[in-house]
Amino acid sequence: MSTPAASVWLVDGEPAAAVPADDRGLAYGDGVFETIALVAGAPALWEAHIGRLQRGCERLGIPAPSRRQLDSDLARLAPSGDGVLRLTVTRGSGGRGYAPPAVPSPRRILARLPLPERPAAWWQEGVSVRVCHTRLASQPALAGIKHLNRLEQVLARQEWQDPAIAEGLMLAENGELIEATACNVLLRIGDRVLTPPTDHCGIGGLMRDHLLGRLVARGFAAATAPLRLETLAPDAELMLCNSLIGVWPVRWLDAAERPVSALAGELQAALRREGLVALPLEDEA
Amino acid sequence: MSTPAASVWLVDGEPAAAVPADDRGLAYGDGVFETIALVAGAPALWEAHIGRLQRGCERLGIPAPSRRQLDSDLARLAPSGDGVLRLTVTRGSGGRGYAPPAVPSPRRILARLPLPERPAAWWQEGVSVRVCHTRLASQPALAGIKHLNRLEQVLARQEWQDPAIAEGLMLAENGELIEATACNVLLRIGDRVLTPPTDHCGIGGLMRDHLLGRLVARGFAAATAPLRLETLAPDAELMLCNSLIGVWPVRWLDAAERPVSALAGELQAALRREGLVALPLEDEA
Repeated sequence: MSTPAASVWLVDGEPAAAVPADDRGLAYGDGVFETIALVAGAPALWEAHIGRLQRGCERLGIPAPSRRQLDSDLARLAPSGDGVLRLTVTRGSGGRGYAPPAVPSPRRILARLPLPERPAAWWQEGVSVRVCHTRLASQPALAGIKHLNRLEQVLARQEWQDPAIAEGLMLAENGELIEATACNVLLRIGDRVLTPPTDHCGIGGLMRDHLLGRLVARGFAAATAPLRLETLAPDAELMLCNSLIGVWPVRWLDAAERPVSALAGELQAALRREGLVALPLEDEA
Repeated sequence: MSTPAASVWLVDGEPAAAVPADDRGLAYGDGVFETIALVAGAPALWEAHIGRLQRGCERLGIPAPSRRQLDSDLARLAPSGDGVLRLTVTRGSGGRGYAPPAVPSPRRILARLPLPERPAAWWQEGVSVRVCHTRLASQPALAGIKHLNRLEQVLARQEWQDPAIAEGLMLAENGELIEATACNVLLRIGDRVLTPPTDHCGIGGLMRDHLLGRLVARGFAAATAPLRLETLAPDAELMLCNSLIGVWPVRWLDAAERPVSALAGELQAALRREGLVALPLEDEA
């Protein structure tokens, strides 16, 4: 990985480290965001991220920035090296209380952030995960999109401090497994790959969708399906994925060791070839 | 009412109109807020608001600002006249993704805002309300506190533009009435006053609690109870309350006229005497 640069911020296309205090993103979480891998300066899955951002804006009734505007912001940010691009769109300032202004002026916030450092073993040997107590509420009106109301994830992530635990799985109120705090879940059983539906809670992950597409092209049958930890087949291979990490096999689920998916390593290699994630090289392990 | 002054902002005790772009309140809605009536410059129910703010911080694991610190901020803001004080506490900057920093530096944001202008008739003759399609998700971990994840309220408030409609009632997923987008609900039936529980969704309203206390002192029996619009007694008097408006009787619930509570007028008079709300005077109607 190339050395991460310091954080750089752009607000509405101009260098700025601050946002007006009356922004509705701050007041109500009234907006959406994307977390994008920068691989040698290039934003991975850029079109897919813009697409989800625009779908999220549409769901919330926020006029979405155009592809051209975001391309222009990105050119002005001129990111280099490996890192993270956080792209936030809020409804901007104004309105009376919860009522949005009749003609909102959305605000675009881009940040170039350093890539979090994590052990290479997490990719190669698998990660330890726990099950969070915090449950995900069922809210079809907000499910799937990556909006700024993320207190459930903050509460869940706050449940553990042990740096050896990479992630926490989150269940819906009814006990179904939905996702991890910042990852989607994939389950490989033979030639099938399952992932929980995200139409009542959870985020529709872009890395998830990308990997599912690749897996289907390789001959796997892929489907959404309700999953429960207590009925996981013993040989089912659990994987976590998101735009920054690509894919991690799960080795430990609380105290129970699970079969580490060899498929995860193949997917990592493919993502590296495609330039979609800045993965630690094996000789860095 | 005295003339509202323009908005004035204070961030961590210093005059500032902006907040660092990496604030977790903006990134995740990671914080809490209070909306407080300023009556001739004095914040109404100040101790109760500080108490709820501190309880909210405790629930989220954010170190709460002290009463002394908030008193000092308030003195520096030096509000005058009638208006609105918005008090926000976020977890501040920092952390890696959802994981909060080990030692957070919470940020305090105070704003003195003008009082929204509304027809005096809403207090005297009652308001028109509608029933929102957007439902409140059940989330006991966040229910009751006034956190910054308010997209459900924004979506609900966005459902109507008709300025004659004062508020929208919000139901839980199971159909129970919980609150309005920015008000709690009180129901008077004879010598009883009922209000929906807010332990699974909704905000534990301070004006609600204040009014319930006054009503009990006047001989009413008060209780939380699950309420459903379809089984409301025809003579049940519906009222809305919050810290800015005090209390409104509901006259129209969608197309159905309801009995306007005479009790609402008595409560308004009491709140005016106590200096707890800046209500429009009757001769302004």
